[in-house]
Amino acid sequence: MTVVAVCQLGPQIGEIEANRRSVEASVSEAAAAGARVVVLPELCDTGYVFTGREEAEALVASAPESATLDSWRALALGFDVVVVGGFCERSATGELYNSAAIVDRSGVRCVYRKAHLWDREQLVFVAGDAPPPVVETDVGRVGVLICYDLEFPEWVRKVALAGADLVAAPTNWPSCPRPAGERPAEIVKVQADAAVNGVYIAVADRCGEERGVTWVSGSAIVGPDGYPLAGPVLEDRPALLLAEVDLGRARDKRLSEHNDLFLDRRESIYALPPLTASR
Amino acid sequence: MTVVAVCQLGPQIGEIEANRRSVEASVSEAAAAGARVVVLPELCDTGYVFTGREEAEALVASAPESATLDSWRALALGFDVVVVGGFCERSATGELYNSAAIVDRSGVRCVYRKAHLWDREQLVFVAGDAPPPVVETDVGRVGVLICYDLEFPEWVRKVALAGADLVAAPTNWPSCPRPAGERPAEIVKVQADAAVNGVYIAVADRCGEERGVTWVSGSAIVGPDGYPLAGPVLEDRPALLLAEVDLGRARDKRLSEHNDLFLDRRESIYALPPLTASR
Repeated sequence: MTVVAVCQLGPQIGEIEANRRSVEASVSEAAAAGARVVVLPELCDTGYVFTGREEAEALVASAPESATLDSWRALALGFDVVVVGGFCERSATGELYNSAAIVDRSGVRCVYRKAHLWDREQLVFVAGDAPPPVVETDVGRVGVLICYDLEFPEWVRKVALAGADLVAAPTNWPSCPRPAGERPAEIVKVQADAAVNGVYIAVADRCGEERGVTWVSGSAIVGPDGYPLAGPVLEDRPALLLAEVDLGRARDKRLSEHNDLFLDRRESIYALPPLTASR
Repeated sequence: MTVVAVCQLGPQIGEIEANRRSVEASVSEAAAAGARVVVLPELCDTGYVFTGREEAEALVASAPESATLDSWRALALGFDVVVVGGFCERSATGELYNSAAIVDRSGVRCVYRKAHLWDREQLVFVAGDAPPPVVETDVGRVGVLICYDLEFPEWVRKVALAGADLVAAPTNWPSCPRPAGERPAEIVKVQADAAVNGVYIAVADRCGEERGVTWVSGSAIVGPDGYPLAGPVLEDRPALLLAEVDLGRARDKRLSEHNDLFLDRRESIYALPPLTASR
């Protein structure tokens, strides 16, 4: 069994030092509670609500991603945890990416660049083109997606087919209205993502109003049957979620005597052109 | 605005006449309430829990699908409604299919054969290979999927990309345990199907224990934002659900100033091979 942790945090735009201290305190607390994997929100080093590309460039210049990754490397090594978190990346050629890294005691295992950009992110970042990576860690196979990526079943399927036991998902979900008594659709989609692929998904969302934007604060750890094991928090406050899970369960895709989530997929007919509506 | 109806019924194995009367009464009631589209459960003519292929063959021989489709044609014409329901089909060459038809006042518009077979259905039926159809009706574009099909996002995407405003989904969901207070994962998947595609989904599930099998009885009408407009019923009883909807809303896939559910899809990178887990 493995303890997975999700840190719901409230990073503030440009408050690089305070944001880093908040991450360090939360990872330390998670490790003390036995966590072996710790998931952090999207863009948790710089904050999210940039005025535009210039502000993001200035921030990443004054606080390069190397500093963020260095601090996560120290945390991963010091606490022997796998850290998955979102950060603002500037490439060697100067493009900005909304990225996430998987870091363990051996160092940075991968950097993934968000492929589906939400709203004004498109004015700041370039979308990544590479498939979501899956990394073999001490505790199991960890994949990564970022926020709006979770709403494209094709992309979630890709990380699942690549062998992920656990999909770690840094998010910053802006809040929007929903019917009374309903769980936010963002979380419903994550539950479905987990269930149709038979994987664990650990979502680290954020809290703390930033420049007028409020958040779902929907951090959650969902099991391969689609039901939450911890969260969703749904309260505007920092939170640490923990779930003790058997990641190996995600490798058994059987559903019934005659069904298997992956073997029941019918690639050959999925490739057929859709019928048009003009019949 | 269009009133969509879902009839949760309790067909019983082999009770062809009683099952048909139950459908007729329910469609009549739905039409009286103003419905223009009426969705019926999977295999609502024969029942579901066959002992095996032989029993299904005998049933369909004694009560051929032509009789079922004739009765639905009469209902569609008599009440000027679009009927979408599941039935047991025997092909000209003798294969059995778990099928659904869309029938309007002009007659049978299409027959769809379930492409993903659940558990022992594999011992009875041949899986269909054709994409889910979308039919232009008086009230909008109606597509169809059957039960377990809903759990394959690739297949749901196909009917949505083909232009469906409303996906009508006959189901027979066998019940299984779930955590207290949780909505069944089957319904969560339907909510996500609707939200990631921006379509309405009307699920007609069944009730009534049949040969020891009990059911989710999770009939529901879900909007393009993923939230239920009627249901889920979640009670083991016949029920008629009604929702007044603007089917045209499903043609606007915009989510934000810079986002569109379909335009944000990135087909070219979805086609890339997945990264393997051995990194």
